[in-house]
Amino acid sequence: MHFRRTSAHHAWDNAIPPIATVAPGDELTVETAEASGGQLGAGSGTAEVAALDFGRVNPVTGPFRVEGAAPGDALVIDVLGLETGDWGWTACIPGFGLLADDFPDAHLRVSKISGGFAEPLPGLRVPVVPMIGTIGVAPPEPGPHSIVPPRRWGGNMDIRHIGPGARLVLPVGVDGALLSLGDAHAAMGDGEVCGTGIETDGVVRLRVDVRKGAAPSTPMVETHPRSHRTGAALATTGVGPDLMQAAKDAARALIDEIAARTGLAPVDAYLLASIAADLKISEVVDVPNWIVSAHLELSYLS
Amino acid sequence: MHFRRTSAHHAWDNAIPPIATVAPGDELTVETAEASGGQLGAGSGTAEVAALDFGRVNPVTGPFRVEGAAPGDALVIDVLGLETGDWGWTACIPGFGLLADDFPDAHLRVSKISGGFAEPLPGLRVPVVPMIGTIGVAPPEPGPHSIVPPRRWGGNMDIRHIGPGARLVLPVGVDGALLSLGDAHAAMGDGEVCGTGIETDGVVRLRVDVRKGAAPSTPMVETHPRSHRTGAALATTGVGPDLMQAAKDAARALIDEIAARTGLAPVDAYLLASIAADLKISEVVDVPNWIVSAHLELSYLS
Repeated sequence: MHFRRTSAHHAWDNAIPPIATVAPGDELTVETAEASGGQLGAGSGTAEVAALDFGRVNPVTGPFRVEGAAPGDALVIDVLGLETGDWGWTACIPGFGLLADDFPDAHLRVSKISGGFAEPLPGLRVPVVPMIGTIGVAPPEPGPHSIVPPRRWGGNMDIRHIGPGARLVLPVGVDGALLSLGDAHAAMGDGEVCGTGIETDGVVRLRVDVRKGAAPSTPMVETHPRSHRTGAALATTGVGPDLMQAAKDAARALIDEIAARTGLAPVDAYLLASIAADLKISEVVDVPNWIVSAHLELSYLS
Repeated sequence: MHFRRTSAHHAWDNAIPPIATVAPGDELTVETAEASGGQLGAGSGTAEVAALDFGRVNPVTGPFRVEGAAPGDALVIDVLGLETGDWGWTACIPGFGLLADDFPDAHLRVSKISGGFAEPLPGLRVPVVPMIGTIGVAPPEPGPHSIVPPRRWGGNMDIRHIGPGARLVLPVGVDGALLSLGDAHAAMGDGEVCGTGIETDGVVRLRVDVRKGAAPSTPMVETHPRSHRTGAALATTGVGPDLMQAAKDAARALIDEIAARTGLAPVDAYLLASIAADLKISEVVDVPNWIVSAHLELSYLS
């Protein structure tokens, strides 16, 4: 079963009629559209970013009605494969992103994607580790609900470990589950600090199954080793009593280091951190100060 | 130069006289004491945990005066080696830890450490990935300052990537830097959710150097690939507008899964999460809901 990316919707709403019904155990191939929903192209510039209509972002293909899925069940989704498009985009979108106050202006980098690498800047090669940014089921509460935030029912989770070889377990909120997905990324770091990864079209192969009465409290993922980093990294830190502030401080310190060591403009360093750096909670127990660290492989800094 | 763990102090205070003066480029071997400072032993039980005197915890060996280090400089510390003791402890300490409200009672597990593994529970083998929990320099503000929280000057950072092969860069706050270290762990997860790793004595080999005028805003680490995880993992999630609450929700969901899949008591699942699970900030941009995920290698669940 192959589904086109033209069968898309832009909000979570359990009243949206399913585009197909699938049975537990079925494999499907789902095309997904990049997160601007066609507002950006390989030749776009900052003007198009500044003009983005948020009502049209993050289109998701679906919904798929899964036979036998009912509230309280778990929907089990095995990601069998994910092919990216041959280009992707990464942007600083005004008012959006962890450091929106530091980077108020629109900025865009378009990557060519080929041979397992994306190239957001000339000479900067980022290994493709593809992932699904948005995947979820319809909430039981009447909609529409914005596509931007994730919820208990999944959605725009931007968990970079949801890629080929991973298994996602979602709670089912309505009869038939009503699964939709989109927002593929060719690469992203934990945290997605600028608000975008390398946003691209996708062709996702997945298998769905249902476990009766086994709904998890929140989404769970069984990750694949492919999504691990393996190189030595630079880790900057934020230290203090608020995790959000510590995350911002760690990201700012990393951006400063990237800019100082590579000569990249700070806004490009911000995009690189979003694509390739991982935010970790180093400790959240040594009262009253916590540490968030931002890790970027040293290979990006030489 | 070899320094005994008996030369310890229990607070940060720039008035504490140095136990030695070292020169940039010097290598030193520093014994460190486990974090209870001798209040717990390999034969201890929960009564000793409940009676812990926090005024005696986290002893650090030092301070070392580094010739030529002055405020505004960077102190560069290369961790050349770290030998753990042959036992370690992991505890739930009342009032301490991310889920202190869920786990109000003292609980203790003692690990035998040998052959590259620690065994906090019979049959549960955790690879030893040794790290230094507490390493820092004296703050410029007159002391004493509690040893428990980390600060801009380092201290009880509990960053699990500060182990053999790593380089730590700290800002210098006072003439001579006044470096001290302690609190070795045989293993720990990012976040250290219960508040302890596998706490053990250590013998640390390190080299110190000074970079004039290069103080970072906050501590930085260059990590070693040894500290990476490489196996497939279960990732539970917390989803919501507050990172601390999301961290708690992700940890609770992981503890529930560990207990359900292995039969471990929840409090032992909490200790295992602290030793081996990593808290990641999956996204902190999809307003208004962020995701923290708690990752534990699947090998612990079979």
